[in-house]
Order: sequence, then structure tokens, then C-alpha cells
Amino acid sequence: MKTIALLCFAACTSSLFAQDLLPSWNEGETKGRILKFISEAQTEGSDGYIAPGDRIATFDNDGNLWSEKPMYFQLIFIMERVAALAPEHPEWKTQQPFQAVLEGDKAAMKGFGEKELLELMAATHAGMTEEEFSEIVSEWMQTAKHPTAGKLYTEMTFQPMKELLQALRDAGFKTYIVSGGGISFMRPWVEAAYGIPPEQVVGSRIKVEYEEGGKIRRLGEIDLIDDKAGKPVGIYQVIGKRPVLASGNSDGDFQMLEYATTGEGARLGLILHHTDADREWAYDRESHVGQLSRGLDEAAARGWIVIDMAKDWKTIYGE
Amino acid sequence: MKTIALLCFAACTSSLFAQDLLPSWNEGETKGRILKFISEAQTEGSDGYIAPGDRIATFDNDGNLWSEKPMYFQLIFIMERVAALAPEHPEWKTQQPFQAVLEGDKAAMKGFGEKELLELMAATHAGMTEEEFSEIVSEWMQTAKHPTAGKLYTEMTFQPMKELLQALRDAGFKTYIVSGGGISFMRPWVEAAYGIPPEQVVGSRIKVEYEEGGKIRRLGEIDLIDDKAGKPVGIYQVIGKRPVLASGNSDGDFQMLEYATTGEGARLGLILHHTDADREWAYDRESHVGQLSRGLDEAAARGWIVIDMAKDWKTIYGE
Repeated sequence: MKTIALLCFAACTSSLFAQDLLPSWNEGETKGRILKFISEAQTEGSDGYIAPGDRIATFDNDGNLWSEKPMYFQLIFIMERVAALAPEHPEWKTQQPFQAVLEGDKAAMKGFGEKELLELMAATHAGMTEEEFSEIVSEWMQTAKHPTAGKLYTEMTFQPMKELLQALRDAGFKTYIVSGGGISFMRPWVEAAYGIPPEQVVGSRIKVEYEEGGKIRRLGEIDLIDDKAGKPVGIYQVIGKRPVLASGNSDGDFQMLEYATTGEGARLGLILHHTDADREWAYDRESHVGQLSRGLDEAAARGWIVIDMAKDWKTIYGE
Repeated sequence: MKTIALLCFAACTSSLFAQDLLPSWNEGETKGRILKFISEAQTEGSDGYIAPGDRIATFDNDGNLWSEKPMYFQLIFIMERVAALAPEHPEWKTQQPFQAVLEGDKAAMKGFGEKELLELMAATHAGMTEEEFSEIVSEWMQTAKHPTAGKLYTEMTFQPMKELLQALRDAGFKTYIVSGGGISFMRPWVEAAYGIPPEQVVGSRIKVEYEEGGKIRRLGEIDLIDDKAGKPVGIYQVIGKRPVLASGNSDGDFQMLEYATTGEGARLGLILHHTDADREWAYDRESHVGQLSRGLDEAAARGWIVIDMAKDWKTIYGE
């Protein structure tokens, strides 16, 4: 039985070499450079060869593996939690950032950054055990719909990036998420969505404590903001290796890309540029979510590939 | 070529079933229960079956995968760093815990706990980049010798535990270290010693910051003490799953074992009892390093296996 299974696996693997590893990507320089990097990484003797243990690839999540408009999806989740918990917190009516959320004050909410997001996260996500929180997230992901697209949020994950993640894993890479989003918000669903297991998720987190009897209790205090210079710090804490590939879409990913691409040997930096107002959204330097400015300015000089969503992708979410 | 390699792999794997997975363990109840757990974990339909994604096993390091006498090996490393750096720090002559180290004051050093250890770690391990520190550790591991055994420290790793780690990996488990020791002290050598890659090391850590240009700078402040109730916290931060197997040797591992074994389904808790004064060391309730008391009291009621080093192991360090 084992031998038969392995023969089948060998046959399937071999046939892949004749297939297009990135079928949702249009032919062109972007796709060509990515495929060359993956191919050379596995070719001993090539300048681009990467030892198996060093094949670490890190991917931002918001705006990079799924959409992030009109606001981070985790913020939508948080707003729904704030509304649900408001009756127990009358003080929120006059206390920011809660007041803005409860009043649906879009102008105020547009000004929210990582700080307000994490303040709301700490206030609405603390008190319960990790397992209880995980259930709340799982249920929301299975039922909540995006306000304008009307889709489940996991249906707004990018098909071309999922193909890239799979192609990297087939080439022996360990794929990680390194996101400003919360680890406990991502872990329950990323394996089904991206093939990335919970133990390969780096992200922001609140403090937790161990409770005698076997529980992890979530506390209302921030422990790590995994954004900007915090991303290489999160990578140090969890992975302990300099990635050889880093992929992001905003200036919050700049330091991660720099960290990955300043090591020795073959390196790949990817910036996803949202250029597709028809099929997704178009934004960069002026956007309050996913601002991308320095990355665009320096990508060419640093050898990073700027993925043009409208031009390089056949589909955004797949069929 | 691929097919041939896979056929060979299949053959090798099949032949393993005829082999003793734990050749350095004596026959008996301990070995039998461990092998039964591993076998059932892979057997669908068995009560002991564990889904592949849940096969997470966490191992303490000091006193569990290698020796920890006369003191934690990392403390010996730190003492040698203190001595090397002392000329640059005249104030250490009258400042504890440095003074005790410089004067070789064994009585004072016997009182050192996790707190002093980490204070010394922060003071002697900060300022340089992560990569520089990694080189210092690697060189020390290749040259420094244990004060009484005269061996390299990596020669004082436990052969029976290395077999157990390998048997678990062959059964689809991901094996992690979860140690009170520092992550940056362990990552450079644990893959060669135990087959555990750097990204599967959970441990204590000092704060780091990202430095423009691509470097991780080590700061003189403690970020996490991964001991006692800190172990499940470290597991939350890095792994995000409740382990199904936890293995330790002191009361510093108690909470990790409790956390692992209070989940649903098949669980295994292992306590290594140092009972072998001839081949290694014998200590438990009264020891200042690796104190084991509550674990011995509660193991039977909790269904944890107490490994008797003298009785259960054919060899300590292998040949």
C-alpha cells in the first residue's frame, strides 16, 4: 500500500513539471522572474541554489493574500464584536476609539491606525480563553459577509498568491504568514485558505497567561505589533532565520523585505501593487490602508519585483 | 530518478517497521507505553489516533535532551563570556551576580535561579547582532569542554531521547524544543544535535530591534522567560497549538505537561527522572538545578510516564 501510494505521488510530482505552476499569472517578466527563482533554488550548482533548510518564505496577509478594503477585515470583525459587547460597556459611548465604531463615524475610523486597531482588539478580544476566542473567529469566518462584495472573507483570498504559495512548498520552501494582523485571528482559518498551518503564522499578539488546569487566558494588553520594524522582530522570535523570499504590499512590509533581501545568496522581494479598480481596488501612496510609497520608490534599485495586479493576474479570487 | 529515490524511500520506511525504533531503551513498561502511543497515533480508527496536523511534540532541553550538571550549560557559557568581557566592565567586580561569577563563588552561584541566569545573559549577550552572537555560540559549542566530563557539550546529549525524537518525526510528528534556555543559544546547534530546525525552538529571549539595513540587534532586556507557566505562553506565541506530547524533567516543565495532557484525545506526558549517579547524575527534590518534586508527586494520578534513567536506558550519551 505504502509503495503504491508513493509511486502515485512520484507520478503526480513528475507530471507537474509539464504543468504551469502559476496558471493564474499572465506570461511576462514578473511571472518569468518568479519561476526562475523557484527553479534555480532547487538546482544544485546554480547561482540561485538555496539549501533546503534556508528555504523560508514570508508573506504579509492583509492586501497581500486577501483584500483589505474598505478596511482591514479584522477591523470589521472587531467592529461587530464591539457592537455585540457594547451593552456590557456603557462607557464606550463616550470613549474613543469605541465611540467612533458604535456611531459608525467613518471619518474618525479612517484615521485609525495600527494603534487604534490593537486597542480595540485588546478590549474586545480579552478575557476569554484562547480556545473560546478561536471558536468565535471560526464562526465569524464561516458566516460573515464583506459589506460591498457580499462574499465570505475567505472567498476574497488571492488565487494567484495561493498558487505561488503551493509552488514554493512543492519546491521545498516553508511558507509563513508575517502579518500586522493578530495571530489568534488568523490561525483558525489560514490552513484551509492558504495551506499554511497555525504554527507558521507570525503576527501581532496580545499577552496571554497560563491558567492552572490547562487553559490559555487572553489578557487586555498588547505584546507585539508585528508591523514595519516589528516584522523582522516577529521573524526573530518565531522563525529565527532570515527569509530568502519576502512578499508584501505596503510600506508596513518594507523592513521585512529589506531584511530578507539583504542576506547573502539568492533573494526575492515581491511587492503587490493594487492597480485593479475593476476587479479589486486600486491604491498606493495616498491610501490610509495599505499605504505603499517608499516601496514603489526603492523597488527597482533593490531588485524587488513589483507585481502589477491588473497586468500580471488573470484572476483575483479565482472562480 | 525521482521514482527511484521514492521507491528506495518506501523500502527503507517499510524495513523500519521490522526494526526497534528505540534501540537504546530497555524493554519494559516505559518503552512499551511510548511505542504504543506512537503506533496508535498513526492508526486511523484507533482510540489513540491523532490527526497529522495535531502531532505536535514539545521537549524541554536542559536535563531532558542533554545534561544540566553541575549547572545549566548555558550558565557555563555565560561565565566564560563574563570572564572574557570583564576588563571592559570594572563595575562587575562589586556587582552581583557578576562578582560571584568572577570570583568563582560557588556558594553564591548555587543560589542562582532563572532570574540571575537571564540577568547575566542580557548583560553579556547584548549589543551585537544576532548573526554575530550566533557565531560566538557556534564556536563555543565546537571547542568548549565540560568541566568534569571533558566532553564537548553536544556529546552530552541523550541518545535515547534522540531516538525518540526521530521515531516521532518518522510517525509524522513535528518535534519542538520548549526550554528555559535562550533561543539564540540553542538555534545554532540543535539541528545537528537533535534534528530539530531553528524555527522549531521555543525558549527564553531578550528583546531585539530591527536596524535599518537588514540587521537584528540584541538588546539588554528580557522579553520572555520560557519556564514554568511561561512555557505554555511560549507555545502559544510560536506554535499556537496544544501539544499532544510533552516531555520534561523538572518542575519547570510541570505547566507544559499539564497543558499538553489536559486536551482531548490521546496525550502523553513524560518526565525524565535522573536516577543514574554512575553514568550521569542522580537528583530530584533537593536539587537547585532541575528540581523535580510536584512532578513526581502527581505523575501517577495524571497518567504521566516517569522515565527511570538508570533502569530504562541502555546508554546515556551513546557510543
